[in-house]
Formats: sequence, structure tokens, C-alpha cells
Amino acid sequence: MNQFMQMAYDEAQQGLAEGGIPIGSVLVHQGKVLGRGHNRRIQKGSAILHGEMDALENAGRLPASVYKECELYTTLSPCCMCSGTILLYGIPNVIVAENTTFMGEEALLRSRGVNVEVLDDPKCIEMMQRFIREKPELWNEDIGE
Amino acid sequence: MNQFMQMAYDEAQQGLAEGGIPIGSVLVHQGKVLGRGHNRRIQKGSAILHGEMDALENAGRLPASVYKECELYTTLSPCCMCSGTILLYGIPNVIVAENTTFMGEEALLRSRGVNVEVLDDPKCIEMMQRFIREKPELWNEDIGE
Repeated sequence: MNQFMQMAYDEAQQGLAEGGIPIGSVLVHQGKVLGRGHNRRIQKGSAILHGEMDALENAGRLPASVYKECELYTTLSPCCMCSGTILLYGIPNVIVAENTTFMGEEALLRSRGVNVEVLDDPKCIEMMQRFIREKPELWNEDIGE
Repeated sequence: MNQFMQMAYDEAQQGLAEGGIPIGSVLVHQGKVLGRGHNRRIQKGSAILHGEMDALENAGRLPASVYKECELYTTLSPCCMCSGTILLYGIPNVIVAENTTFMGEEALLRSRGVNVEVLDDPKCIEMMQRFIREKPELWNEDIGE
């Protein structure tokens, strides 16, 4: 596993340890981490802090020119909220650990020119499969179902 | 102006008074306000707290069944982040004060079955036109440009 995806996985595991939903994300610019985060729905009673959103929020306000040279690593295929945010900021590269347990808006992202790479990572698939099996009600809430 | 849009406008004006970007939003369920908010990019150094996101965050965690009976009022046409969030939660009705100063993802929302009503409100158009004229750099940052 690439170092940045490992960091996203570590974020997801931290979320899990906090009693949260195990999804993590890292924003990278020219090899440097600008922000990292994980889903904080449970921890903060948040409706918007998915892993990707938390990473972007932790990166703080950035010039448009920086986003446009970034990669966003995420342990799970980005939902429509997170995909919309990727489009808002024009992040050109999204690296997704897996889309087996949840298929996000990869087609929309690609149709707008975003390069989406899916790794099919077995560790991340197993992590989400277990979570969905153990806490289906939290998972459904997180994806608006 | 409808009472809920007036509330969204008041939120926008509060944001302006705080030195922020004047966009406000209100989430309504069966005639009751569940959350209201305004853009807090400047106030909180936030990359994700657009007006709509702030209203949803202030509403807290809600069951999917509630979102699916809500209306979201917003003073400005929702960008792709906010539109993606509307789609995530399946909010069926979005009332937009204006899309003259910024055209968001109304077509995407409609293509996914969301009812989008645009009011062309002169007060909201004037508010944003003035802000964009006076603080173009903040406005551009907010829309990723």
C-alpha cells in the first residue's frame, strides 16, 4: 500500500477506535500532505464530515491553484457530497482504495475530467465489510439510506 | 419574500456583518426549521462551510426519512458540493433565491429528480452582485476559481 493510502487507512482505523465510521482520506500536494482526516459523523454529531470532507477541512483554506495540483486519497469510493466537493475545487486526481462495498460518483467525476484510480485494496474492503455487517444502521445513515 | 427565504436572507446578512460571504440557507421539515446557517469560510477558515452545508450541519444527524420530506432554502444557486450533499440525503425540494450571479448544479439536481425552484429575488441578486464587486478574491476562492 502506497504511503498516502496507508495514512488514509490509519485515519480510518483511528475513526473506528473512536467508535466512528472507518473511512479516511488524505489531501496531497506535490508529495506533501496538506490535510488528513476521517469520518466524524458519530464523534462530532456531524452530517457533513465524511472522511474526504474532514481531510479538506483540516487542510484549511487553499488557493484554487493548489487544489488543481492535488491528489485526494480515500479508503472508499466518494459519495455525491464528497465528489461534488472534488469538482468544486477541481482536484484532478482521486485515488480510491475500494468501491466494492460502496460505489460512489466515480462516473460523474470521470465525466467531468477527474482521473479516478481504484486500487481494490483487500484490507480496506474487509474493513468496510465488517463495519457494514456490525453497524448497518450507522452505515445507512452515513449514505442517506 | 417567503418567511423561510427571509430567514436565509437574514443568515446571509449576518454572515456579511461578520465579514463573511453573504450566503444563507434554511432546512425546513413540514413547516418547521431544522437548521439554519450561513457561509463561514472567513469566520472559521473553512473550506466546506458553504451556507447550505452550515444549515445541514446545524440541523445535526437526521434520519434519512426526514431529509426525504424536507425543503432546503438557499439565497444562491447551490454549487456542486452543496448539490452533491442534497443528492446524498435525497432532499427533494430546493428553493433558490437567485442564479443570476452564480449558476450552480441545478441541471444535475433536476436530472436526479430534485424539484428546483428559482425565485429571481432582486434583493438577493443585489446582495451578491455587490459582494462579488467588492471582494472578488473571496468570491473566487469560495467557488474554487
